[in-house]
Amino acid sequence: MFKNEMTERLMIQYPIIQAPMAGGITTSKLVAEVSNSGALGMIGAGYMTPMQMRKQISEMKELTSNSFGINLFVPAPFDVKEKEIERANQLLEPIREELHIQEEPVKIPDYNEVQATFHEQLKVVIDEQVPICSFTFGIPSKEIIETLKQHDVILLGTATTVQEAIEVEKSGMDLVVVQGSEAGGHRGNFLDGHQESLVGLMSLIPQVADQVTIPVVSAGGIMDGRGLTASLYLGAQGVQMGTAFLTCLESGANERHKEEILHAKEDQIVLTRSFSGKYARGIKNKFISDMEPFEDSFPPFPVQNTLTQNLRRAASSQQNRDSMSLWSGQSPRLAKKQSVKALIQNVVAKLNNFNH
Amino acid sequence: MFKNEMTERLMIQYPIIQAPMAGGITTSKLVAEVSNSGALGMIGAGYMTPMQMRKQISEMKELTSNSFGINLFVPAPFDVKEKEIERANQLLEPIREELHIQEEPVKIPDYNEVQATFHEQLKVVIDEQVPICSFTFGIPSKEIIETLKQHDVILLGTATTVQEAIEVEKSGMDLVVVQGSEAGGHRGNFLDGHQESLVGLMSLIPQVADQVTIPVVSAGGIMDGRGLTASLYLGAQGVQMGTAFLTCLESGANERHKEEILHAKEDQIVLTRSFSGKYARGIKNKFISDMEPFEDSFPPFPVQNTLTQNLRRAASSQQNRDSMSLWSGQSPRLAKKQSVKALIQNVVAKLNNFNH
Repeated sequence: MFKNEMTERLMIQYPIIQAPMAGGITTSKLVAEVSNSGALGMIGAGYMTPMQMRKQISEMKELTSNSFGINLFVPAPFDVKEKEIERANQLLEPIREELHIQEEPVKIPDYNEVQATFHEQLKVVIDEQVPICSFTFGIPSKEIIETLKQHDVILLGTATTVQEAIEVEKSGMDLVVVQGSEAGGHRGNFLDGHQESLVGLMSLIPQVADQVTIPVVSAGGIMDGRGLTASLYLGAQGVQMGTAFLTCLESGANERHKEEILHAKEDQIVLTRSFSGKYARGIKNKFISDMEPFEDSFPPFPVQNTLTQNLRRAASSQQNRDSMSLWSGQSPRLAKKQSVKALIQNVVAKLNNFNH
Repeated sequence: MFKNEMTERLMIQYPIIQAPMAGGITTSKLVAEVSNSGALGMIGAGYMTPMQMRKQISEMKELTSNSFGINLFVPAPFDVKEKEIERANQLLEPIREELHIQEEPVKIPDYNEVQATFHEQLKVVIDEQVPICSFTFGIPSKEIIETLKQHDVILLGTATTVQEAIEVEKSGMDLVVVQGSEAGGHRGNFLDGHQESLVGLMSLIPQVADQVTIPVVSAGGIMDGRGLTASLYLGAQGVQMGTAFLTCLESGANERHKEEILHAKEDQIVLTRSFSGKYARGIKNKFISDMEPFEDSFPPFPVQNTLTQNLRRAASSQQNRDSMSLWSGQSPRLAKKQSVKALIQNVVAKLNNFNH
């Protein structure tokens, strides 16, 4: 049986975390099936209201007695500039029309509101005694970390560079997820610039492993046993997989999104900040191409994300691939339509050959 | 003893190739020591005249009886536009002045001249019976590949995406080097665009290995045994290492270049096209920062490379780190000042544990 500090701390059988993808993908069905199959299921709660969180956590408790976790976004200060918003709306308007969007634009939050929501979300984690909580886009304050630790919540941070990983360890978190440039969805960098923090896992894992003592979990482009074994030899204790779970039968992702990944090639996967104001990796489509010349002018996260919310939702419900945010890591050719159990068994098949 | 198709075809003891870095790094001393230590030494001849090639090849024959190789750049068509050149010269002039450059600017070659040189270079490879030849920036014509094969030259192509690797195999080459986004120096993409071809090795190796039957050699950020073992588990048969050999005692790299890598961090390594007109990865310095806003306006390779030639040479001889092209992969924290023999022994130390 495979056992290391990561599996011990997270109370799981296999060194695999299902990435906490936000936006409706991590349904209770998916997350519970992951936990029931011996890996760590994670609720992507970044965009959830406290009420939605409570509901899903109580579903989880019914569906599994195994350990599971939740992920929150750490708010970073941002400015709301009317000029930027006007300009973005001008660029987005033709696409909204194409999608026949009638709804009123969503209200843009300010930093204080975002922080208030974050604190409510944290309260839910504590109240509901969620065993594991991971963070993206930054490190919560010392007070927050202390409170969570007092309530025996196991904490994971996300890092894209060695320095970010060192800061995660310093903050008192229990494990660090290192996100390679291969990873799909949003970039988790919070100290380093965008270009500087696009480090491939072949470089990132060993350099981080040499500098921190907490367990390192590697994330980005890992879809099968080859990626897990390679990660272990590079110095990680396990992996976090997103796209691999996204195309699973149990995932709540839009079926069109799944199909697009299953037919994509690695050289169609690009980075864009046009959907949310923060760089994220997905399949290139008309929206990304059309907005590319203007992407530097869009307002920051979460402002742009709010501006495109109706647009993304409409595109998704119309299965309109031209304007959907088709997040994917760089290994779409390895994606399969399979059950969570089959995926996990496939990934761990050769785990016992690993020489500690 | 470790043995696979790669070591057999390249007639080497260990599945390691020393990357054919151009620009004076791959001195005969370095290349011969690599070959004498059981790996494959490679002459970076991309910028060499046929005469320089003949000289180094004959030195190599004196210094080693083991197999060694040479690398050439495959010319791609390019336009010489006076307006672009004028604009570039305006931007470069202040830096030339800072470096007190008196020399006349170098004559800009046209595509026909570059092609003529390439054919002369190929003639040297055949005349001198160089056992192994690798190519970057493209695939030579069918006729060239046939001629080289008739002369029993083992051929390696460079690919940055699955499609490029498939084309390398189709062309009849014997092995394919897959260059991950982690790699230092010039990007080898020739079919796909810059962004689309920046694929991390964790994603690139298994996706290529699933699609080609020739041996896959992985390149990018690999500096020690962890990277070699990980590459093997991902589906490669061996590795090509550049930066790891660059800082070796025997390397011909500028001492300042070596020192900069030995003190660099992974988040200081960026991509720029300002030095050559083609994207390349190196340590961020004043030149890269200052030119960044204009880099899209520079003429294509090799035009821009010619325009910066005196500048790079002067910066290098003055050990001026502000304007040197300090190429490096994304793992500088793993770089060591050591002998070639020590590096190779370190990398292969755990090779016998590998489960085929």
